[in-house]
Amino acid sequence: MSYDNQNIFAKILREELPCIKVYEDEHTLAFMDIMPQSEGHTLVIPKVAAETLFELPASHYEACFNTLKKVGNALKKAFGTEGIMMFQLSGADAGQTVPHLHFHLLPTSIHTLRTSTHAAKMADQVILQGYADRIIAVME
Amino acid sequence: MSYDNQNIFAKILREELPCIKVYEDEHTLAFMDIMPQSEGHTLVIPKVAAETLFELPASHYEACFNTLKKVGNALKKAFGTEGIMMFQLSGADAGQTVPHLHFHLLPTSIHTLRTSTHAAKMADQVILQGYADRIIAVME
Repeated sequence: MSYDNQNIFAKILREELPCIKVYEDEHTLAFMDIMPQSEGHTLVIPKVAAETLFELPASHYEACFNTLKKVGNALKKAFGTEGIMMFQLSGADAGQTVPHLHFHLLPTSIHTLRTSTHAAKMADQVILQGYADRIIAVME
Repeated sequence: MSYDNQNIFAKILREELPCIKVYEDEHTLAFMDIMPQSEGHTLVIPKVAAETLFELPASHYEACFNTLKKVGNALKKAFGTEGIMMFQLSGADAGQTVPHLHFHLLPTSIHTLRTSTHAAKMADQVILQGYADRIIAVME
């Protein structure tokens, strides 16, 4: 399947659309999920034309893991939990809604995760910015 | 937190306990989850003393991603879906039940995932072996 460079995360990477950013480096960007399944629900995406995990090039492996760890550690501090759930959906069959590879990070328990509402409801942007501020404040 | 080398995945890595293996290389092992949340639910673990994602050393990044892609591609073929869900729980607060880092791979949709039954029910070993055989048969 060919990568669609008009997907919303591609537009965010090109700064054609806004996002509530918590971290960025050469190879990755992390920002608040606008349809969060928990407080602090953050997305990590590679800066590469990869639709799913299966197209992620080896050149971006290290940056993806490093950013997941960096943001995940900040989520633990910002939301007062030792538990972090990471998930990633490859393909519309698995519920992937934006065709650019994204890793979900949630400071929450799988037992309380509202999976039935994945990408279902837009959150208040001011509340999301507040979460982002809390995450950024504790990031190391 | 210090790594508990008596956890069941450490024992599987030392071959003190059995597993239904689908893939192994120098740095990773993949085997059937014995309490599956879907047909084909497979675990990928690094061969390193890491309790959560946050202790995974950079030396194992490439092998983890490569094995997730290899096994995930096999799951797609073996179970006839284009959708793969990957998830990983860090910490008991997030529902982690075995204190050795493990990535879950499921050929299924998050919308049908029985999250409420995570690590809840033991599966028939013969059925699991049948799934493993299907995965191994199509692995590239």
